[in-house]
Amino acid sequence: MARMDVETRARLAALIRGERVASLGTLRQQAPLVSMVAFLAEQDFSAFHVHVSRLAWHTQDMAQDARVSLAIVERDDGREDPQTLARVSLRADAAALANEGAVYERLKAAWLARHPASAINFELADFHFWRLAPRDARFVAGFGRIHNLTAADLCSAS
Amino acid sequence: MARMDVETRARLAALIRGERVASLGTLRQQAPLVSMVAFLAEQDFSAFHVHVSRLAWHTQDMAQDARVSLAIVERDDGREDPQTLARVSLRADAAALANEGAVYERLKAAWLARHPASAINFELADFHFWRLAPRDARFVAGFGRIHNLTAADLCSAS
Repeated sequence: MARMDVETRARLAALIRGERVASLGTLRQQAPLVSMVAFLAEQDFSAFHVHVSRLAWHTQDMAQDARVSLAIVERDDGREDPQTLARVSLRADAAALANEGAVYERLKAAWLARHPASAINFELADFHFWRLAPRDARFVAGFGRIHNLTAADLCSAS
Repeated sequence: MARMDVETRARLAALIRGERVASLGTLRQQAPLVSMVAFLAEQDFSAFHVHVSRLAWHTQDMAQDARVSLAIVERDDGREDPQTLARVSLRADAAALANEGAVYERLKAAWLARHPASAINFELADFHFWRLAPRDARFVAGFGRIHNLTAADLCSAS
């Protein structure tokens, strides 16, 4: 495992800021379930947020067990070897946030700037923000270029 | 939940055949871990294969607990609303295959046709095929267009 140099940190930040959707792994009946979510990273990568319906399976799962994983994968551009796509897998703890207050208003504004097409979801009572707080992360910058990161390492890339 | 009509089945088949990489959810210390994998679907969608190193975390996880989830997500084309991207989440049981025999040779040929850049992995002793046999699937053909599928339903889309 190599430490991240300046270029690697920049590549990780570009990945996290460049993608809009990610794959969320939750526990459903003690087994993994992976589903697509739109996400938004805090500027310092200390947390990642999703805005999800209480009716969705992944939301029900997070309410039962906070342990989740979020994989952000560079979109496939048709290159010869897809194993060179950059990706980061977070392991995180999820917590629901209230639909009111300063944190909510700040997140809502940031979310709408990133995901303007989802404005209608803010008019639905069953949607809430969930905060995913990373425990650790694994950044694969390309085939065999694997970096195991603490939550602090992740923030250092922001 | 709507049943799949002809158009929906065609959309599911195009998704599965159109993407090369997917997000694999495994259990690691009883918690989810999601990582990127290249994959190959059987023609009839009765199984999905990955070709992975024994050294990889997801492989170690599958050896400990066969329960996995595989999410195949339409690549983000920058459209206005990413929630309209098609995606399918399988829940499956994983089993390692031997590096010899007719099944192996057939899979190897199909894999190399789909993933020619990964030829070198067949020269490494720590790589094996794993067969992911779907228990069920959840196809989201767009926002709110959710289809819960049995393994047989999935095959019907092939």
